[in-house]
Amino acid sequence: MKYIKDIKENESVRGIYLCRGKRSAETRNGKPYDNLILQDKTGTLDGKVWDPNSQGIADYDEKDFIDVVGDVISYNGNLQLNVKQIRRAQEGEYDPADYMPTSEKSIDGMYEELLGYISQIKNEYLRQVVEFYFVKDDAFIKNFKGHSAAKTVHHGFAGGLLEHTLSVVKMCEYFAGAYPILNRDLLYTSAICHDIGKTKELSNFPDNDYTDDGQLIGHIVIGVEMVGDAVREIPGFPEKLASELKHCIIAHHGELEYGSPKKPALAEAVALNYADSADAKLQTLTEIFRAKDSMDWLGYNRLFESNLRKTSV
Amino acid sequence: MKYIKDIKENESVRGIYLCRGKRSAETRNGKPYDNLILQDKTGTLDGKVWDPNSQGIADYDEKDFIDVVGDVISYNGNLQLNVKQIRRAQEGEYDPADYMPTSEKSIDGMYEELLGYISQIKNEYLRQVVEFYFVKDDAFIKNFKGHSAAKTVHHGFAGGLLEHTLSVVKMCEYFAGAYPILNRDLLYTSAICHDIGKTKELSNFPDNDYTDDGQLIGHIVIGVEMVGDAVREIPGFPEKLASELKHCIIAHHGELEYGSPKKPALAEAVALNYADSADAKLQTLTEIFRAKDSMDWLGYNRLFESNLRKTSV
Amino acid sequence: MKYIKDIKENESVRGIYLCRGKRSAETRNGKPYDNLILQDKTGTLDGKVWDPNSQGIADYDEKDFIDVVGDVISYNGNLQLNVKQIRRAQEGEYDPADYMPTSEKSIDGMYEELLGYISQIKNEYLRQVVEFYFVKDDAFIKNFKGHSAAKTVHHGFAGGLLEHTLSVVKMCEYFAGAYPILNRDLLYTSAICHDIGKTKELSNFPDNDYTDDGQLIGHIVIGVEMVGDAVREIPGFPEKLASELKHCIIAHHGELEYGSPKKPALAEAVALNYADSADAKLQTLTEIFRAKDSMDWLGYNRLFESNLRKTSV
Amino acid sequence: MKYIKDIKENESVRGIYLCRGKRSAETRNGKPYDNLILQDKTGTLDGKVWDPNSQGIADYDEKDFIDVVGDVISYNGNLQLNVKQIRRAQEGEYDPADYMPTSEKSIDGMYEELLGYISQIKNEYLRQVVEFYFVKDDAFIKNFKGHSAAKTVHHGFAGGLLEHTLSVVKMCEYFAGAYPILNRDLLYTSAICHDIGKTKELSNFPDNDYTDDGQLIGHIVIGVEMVGDAVREIPGFPEKLASELKHCIIAHHGELEYGSPKKPALAEAVALNYADSADAKLQTLTEIFRAKDSMDWLGYNRLFESNLRKTSV
Amino acid sequence: MKYIKDIKENESVRGIYLCRGKRSAETRNGKPYDNLILQDKTGTLDGKVWDPNSQGIADYDEKDFIDVVGDVISYNGNLQLNVKQIRRAQEGEYDPADYMPTSEKSIDGMYEELLGYISQIKNEYLRQVVEFYFVKDDAFIKNFKGHSAAKTVHHGFAGGLLEHTLSVVKMCEYFAGAYPILNRDLLYTSAICHDIGKTKELSNFPDNDYTDDGQLIGHIVIGVEMVGDAVREIPGFPEKLASELKHCIIAHHGELEYGSPKKPALAEAVALNYADSADAKLQTLTEIFRAKDSMDWLGYNRLFESNLRKTSV
Amino acid sequence: MKYIKDIKENESVRGIYLCRGKRSAETRNGKPYDNLILQDKTGTLDGKVWDPNSQGIADYDEKDFIDVVGDVISYNGNLQLNVKQIRRAQEGEYDPADYMPTSEKSIDGMYEELLGYISQIKNEYLRQVVEFYFVKDDAFIKNFKGHSAAKTVHHGFAGGLLEHTLSVVKMCEYFAGAYPILNRDLLYTSAICHDIGKTKELSNFPDNDYTDDGQLIGHIVIGVEMVGDAVREIPGFPEKLASELKHCIIAHHGELEYGSPKKPALAEAVALNYADSADAKLQTLTEIFRAKDSMDWLGYNRLFESNLRKTSV
Repeated sequence: MKYIKDIKENESVRGIYLCRGKRSAETRNGKPYDNLILQDKTGTLDGKVWDPNSQGIADYDEKDFIDVVGDVISYNGNLQLNVKQIRRAQEGEYDPADYMPTSEKSIDGMYEELLGYISQIKNEYLRQVVEFYFVKDDAFIKNFKGHSAAKTVHHGFAGGLLEHTLSVVKMCEYFAGAYPILNRDLLYTSAICHDIGKTKELSNFPDNDYTDDGQLIGHIVIGVEMVGDAVREIPGFPEKLASELKHCIIAHHGELEYGSPKKPALAEAVALNYADSADAKLQTLTEIFRAKDSMDWLGYNRLFESNLRKTSV
Repeated sequence: MKYIKDIKENESVRGIYLCRGKRSAETRNGKPYDNLILQDKTGTLDGKVWDPNSQGIADYDEKDFIDVVGDVISYNGNLQLNVKQIRRAQEGEYDPADYMPTSEKSIDGMYEELLGYISQIKNEYLRQVVEFYFVKDDAFIKNFKGHSAAKTVHHGFAGGLLEHTLSVVKMCEYFAGAYPILNRDLLYTSAICHDIGKTKELSNFPDNDYTDDGQLIGHIVIGVEMVGDAVREIPGFPEKLASELKHCIIAHHGELEYGSPKKPALAEAVALNYADSADAKLQTLTEIFRAKDSMDWLGYNRLFESNLRKTSV
Repeated sequence: MKYIKDIKENESVRGIYLCRGKRSAETRNGKPYDNLILQDKTGTLDGKVWDPNSQGIADYDEKDFIDVVGDVISYNGNLQLNVKQIRRAQEGEYDPADYMPTSEKSIDGMYEELLGYISQIKNEYLRQVVEFYFVKDDAFIKNFKGHSAAKTVHHGFAGGLLEHTLSVVKMCEYFAGAYPILNRDLLYTSAICHDIGKTKELSNFPDNDYTDDGQLIGHIVIGVEMVGDAVREIPGFPEKLASELKHCIIAHHGELEYGSPKKPALAEAVALNYADSADAKLQTLTEIFRAKDSMDWLGYNRLFESNLRKTSV
Repeated sequence: MKYIKDIKENESVRGIYLCRGKRSAETRNGKPYDNLILQDKTGTLDGKVWDPNSQGIADYDEKDFIDVVGDVISYNGNLQLNVKQIRRAQEGEYDPADYMPTSEKSIDGMYEELLGYISQIKNEYLRQVVEFYFVKDDAFIKNFKGHSAAKTVHHGFAGGLLEHTLSVVKMCEYFAGAYPILNRDLLYTSAICHDIGKTKELSNFPDNDYTDDGQLIGHIVIGVEMVGDAVREIPGFPEKLASELKHCIIAHHGELEYGSPKKPALAEAVALNYADSADAKLQTLTEIFRAKDSMDWLGYNRLFESNLRKTSV
Repeated sequence: MKYIKDIKENESVRGIYLCRGKRSAETRNGKPYDNLILQDKTGTLDGKVWDPNSQGIADYDEKDFIDVVGDVISYNGNLQLNVKQIRRAQEGEYDPADYMPTSEKSIDGMYEELLGYISQIKNEYLRQVVEFYFVKDDAFIKNFKGHSAAKTVHHGFAGGLLEHTLSVVKMCEYFAGAYPILNRDLLYTSAICHDIGKTKELSNFPDNDYTDDGQLIGHIVIGVEMVGDAVREIPGFPEKLASELKHCIIAHHGELEYGSPKKPALAEAVALNYADSADAKLQTLTEIFRAKDSMDWLGYNRLFESNLRKTSV
Repeated sequence: MKYIKDIKENESVRGIYLCRGKRSAETRNGKPYDNLILQDKTGTLDGKVWDPNSQGIADYDEKDFIDVVGDVISYNGNLQLNVKQIRRAQEGEYDPADYMPTSEKSIDGMYEELLGYISQIKNEYLRQVVEFYFVKDDAFIKNFKGHSAAKTVHHGFAGGLLEHTLSVVKMCEYFAGAYPILNRDLLYTSAICHDIGKTKELSNFPDNDYTDDGQLIGHIVIGVEMVGDAVREIPGFPEKLASELKHCIIAHHGELEYGSPKKPALAEAVALNYADSADAKLQTLTEIFRAKDSMDWLGYNRLFESNLRKTSV
């Protein structure tokens, strides 16, 4: 099978892809056809089934893995697959991992790094909170490693949540070295835990969409509840410290209008907010510039409220 | 002893009052003196101790109950007590309840009414959540009954939290009758619980100030955690329902910039937000117009962003 | 004739419908065709006239009542009528009332209820203002009964203005009972009159669009002028009371940026603003949830600035 | 009598002044004294009555004209009158006009200019609206000529409303010449009438404060009602034209948050908004720079949201 | 050749036009075709090349001048040219000036007027700054005369920058006459120079798009740098005056959120901001009403945040 | 002489201090007195001259260095010096450096560090820009080393500009290592130069106030002009690179409403904005927590829009 990123105009393609989207339509002449979005871990490809009632097109649905045969044309500057045959693939014929966009970095390597930071936390209460999830809870660990950090913007791939978390922790390491008022233990703990609520806010790949709890509660309050669950299991956890840790998570979006019900009131909360926001913005730029390999202006970007371009040097 | 609201110019006063504030100062001539704020449940009175080192002035501190002797003058339109003697009162000489501003309505009567609404909740899971606190937790009940709903604005008196909660529930009763899309059980439950976090956000009278948790976490998230504590104890509580209840509490301020990390996404959350906000505004007006018995314009009010006056009819 | 809400895929349809919209277009091959929107009181239906120059297609225009013959297909999940014959219907062949979306409640019944509230107004000046329009002015009464409260959002159907007004009055009845500072007479009067300017802001069905005065002046100021017209005819009307009534109307949107040139400065104006806003939001939700019978998330709603879904209980 | 602007340090002063403000206070030693603000048309002067119970100090009140005797000292860089004698002056002893800040320009001259513009209005309906007030209504004319345009900011002196109105009309004359899309008649009429509501929004000198109607209705809506009163008396006035004129008045503040319930939708409304705003800002600067004769930075100005200084050339 | 504004439905057209845009597409049947935008100085016309591979269609590109043959049809209310032949035109066959939208006023005439204002500047330093560009720099003069003032909104045509600048200067002439606090020399100089940075912010016709410097630096800061370049060449230029001139340019957008890094702090800066903004708005309205010759409402306009219509008189 | 930070209640003090402020006032009894603010590099102290006309009090003015004798009392919780003798000190009696608040870090050491970063810039054009000021311009170097970064907030002491600049560069070093899309040379150069305009925006100590240019132009645009001055002297400087460098300076405040006329459009500009803002906030916190050595809540802080306290761990 060919990876989507390697497919070229005028090729014939045969392979199993994830059917990410399916929408039935009709031509002006009243002929029905199907619009597809095919996906593997290297990207997505538009497909058209111009004759959905032909013998070669078996039943299939959104989120099925399908075996397709077709020809690639170029339409309005984008590749498009005119699909002639479709067959639902059986479990075993494919490895789901091949169909999810995934961090380019080693997930296990990054996790090792994260564990290294955890081992630096000297305050035993704080370290126990982190270990509650990141060392002792296998289901959480598996989920966290494979999760994305977002639905559409930065780090929207498997491993993205881990990659973002590690980046934030590293920036906090810099901050803790540069600004002595910051307590390294609290800063590391809150950095490591700041987005754990995302494991419940977004469903897993290939779905990667907001859960009911994500819509109703949001990852910030979910995260606070998860921290509370850990704290409850740790005898003697100082109340004030628990509140400070929860505060850092509550306030990490920095502004009420960004969904933090409290503005940062502790130095560590201020620092965490900067680390989270700076990593999100710089990673988003990294992904934007990777996607469009051009020195030209890329057009108005809503997140940055500016036109963007790569630097000339 | 005379209640503060009954004290008049040119009287001599002797009685026990709560020393709400104490600030030492010095006249231009270098003579030290003390500024006091005296309080009982009917109001506050400014005091001056022009000779704090005289024999008649014993040691005393802010938040002490003190036995004072002095003369009342009028200074710049306000009454002021020139204090000649001060003595710290002993426990037993006074009843603390006489020194806290308190709801004018019967606290037990209001609580009975609230219990009546609780008994109307048909969904057994939701009713159990409410009963967890309002029926079974004596410490919570005592605290809730005596609490204020705010530090400075509306319902800033003992019983104020109960009075506000009951008003909100009653308005929700009206809403549930008028708009059939609203689920009465969820609306009552979230109305009754919407401000339970305030029992931990504000300390008790006479202090009535923000707690550490109030500053760091806030009553909205505290309330969600308290609901979570109850839900955890109720076997079989439907997850979706728990999220919906938490959402109503999370969203009851209606806007992100007012501290709700989520906007209302359920009809009951929309209704609760209106009931909470309308009661707060109309009760604030009630307190403003009670305090100034005048048909004149009262001056710009920051909360209402308007000058205010009583209606002529 | 079949009501639009009862029409199904693959049926043949013949009947008289209101031509709500007509737009001529051309296929890629240069063949002209017409896009129609057909309407009756139960809903709207897209139509296509693929052969507008055929003999069967007589002349017709937007806002005509037309007798159509055609076949129903499903296109992209929506029904569509492929129209083969069109004939302009004659007056008498149809009852215009069948073609306007209309309140599901009895208009006369609601009006009776409103008159009941009017009879409760004890202040004779205020009652006379209301009676000036709602009892004595037959043209106004007819217009008010048939009017919608809005062009697109809540209560956008004949009788909608009456239904909204009655709902607001009822909520004001609740407020007046719950908050003694409110003057019931002024509150009822201003609630009943708050949107009378809409009778001139929006044209009647089937047009239901902004009038020139609606664009230039707006229903708030129009309403104030209408109140002024009534006051002028009532000998001895107290000036201060007239100003207070006008103020309640002026301020009923609550915020300058929502088009009220003054923020509420009287308690009744505050209450009216809440009643108007709460009814608008809860009725909008009622209409949204009626239109989409689903327990799923309905997607981002711009008015509520949130995704929305029905409650699970 | 000496004009306040001519009074100097260390002088003795005797004369009749308007008692603009009176506030009783008490020294640290418990001695009562009075703070006064004395005013004539050239400015204001602080006064102190250190011995208000002495024989020389007769009864007097705010807004009385009082005959005072005292000595001028300099206190913290400002002049202050230590008042020894006070006597309420009798009507006839003074001319009230001498005590109001007044336009430096000839009021009758400006009014003549305004009449000149009125005579240029060719549309007879519009001219009749203007004449209804500015030619035929003597009470209005007298009131308009003596009115201020504001309580505290620009044009806060007798004749200020006339001076501002004339300036706005002149700028509209420029606009009408430069931009042919503007209709001169409508622009002049709306410019002349744009602030007529201020004659009822602010009370007359020496009070010059918001009236009840000013608080509740505001000069914009009052102005629309006054235009309506005139239009009603002019047979055959075109409805559309009346709406356009009212719109220009409604929209002349330019933004909803500045109290205009509609944004400008006609070219004349856009132009009037600029003329009103530009004159207000440039006249405010004129008054600021006249008051402080300095080339230094004058400090942050809240209206301009900037520090201000005179230009060096 | 026919001007685009004179082309009518069902005509055959042959002539040279600027190919403003070209986008290749494909019909449902997989047949490729090209979408064109053709332009001359009177307007633009959509074109379709249904058979781009036919012999008659020679190679051509965006921004080429092309000789086209085709038939005009009406599609969805707009004219469209079905193009049958295309040939790239040679230099000499056309006059580029015929293909740019251009001011309707005489460019040389307007420039003369501008020079007249320059000659009125009495302060020799300020006059030298203006002359540095507007008298002595031929390349600048040529560029300035042919430049537009904007990419899409008001004055978006050759000569537009000159036309806008002259309008702003004339309004400043009015201001300087009406408000004596304004220094005429500084006001004229800053008005003449306020948008000189646009000569580098926008590229020349036919491109008329943001330059790299326009995106990165913006015309306000570019203008300050250009003034700095001139000042540096003028011996003895008073530093304070240079700063004041730069300030007027910096602040001419009036608000930080409109891209001025400083709010106006000098009276001339306030006046310039009004002149710039008023001319932009009134010219935009002029262009809008010229484009749509209708007395109807034109629909919501984003710049004016309002629906717009022509006045009835 | 005693440093101000070491002065205690009830001491007698004699020494030379900078007279930071002087304001004459008068007691209730009409007795004149002077309020002083005395300063040395360790802090400020309030002073009162109760008998300014006594023989011991020689002539002196704001910003003089004065030799004072007096007694320290405590007034309302703050120390206050009752001054009995004052004498203007002669140059030579004091070292001005002793009277300016100064960075606690070694200025020369920090400058060495900064030079180390400069030497890492590989792009010779960018390095020459930095060297133009930081290596070759002795007057600039001296000024930069002694400058504060602000008037009142963070880094408001001599050396503060250097300390802030170095912190920003170091954070940029972290960013450049963590995010490969960032060009290290451009990021270092713009970080080093981002606030060079402050050397002209704020006057030197002891004045440390906004200059005329600071008010009119602001340090952002001044900085761009200074970069332009350097670029002009460097033959062959690539235009695009110059624009990119200027852009980073222009955009370093990140938001238009914070005075950046452009939002960041290059990755380096985004990074610089974060480094500048994060250092400002974390240094401000450092200074706040240093000033108040308390674990209590410090009260609402306007910059952080939050109450603040030190972390408990």
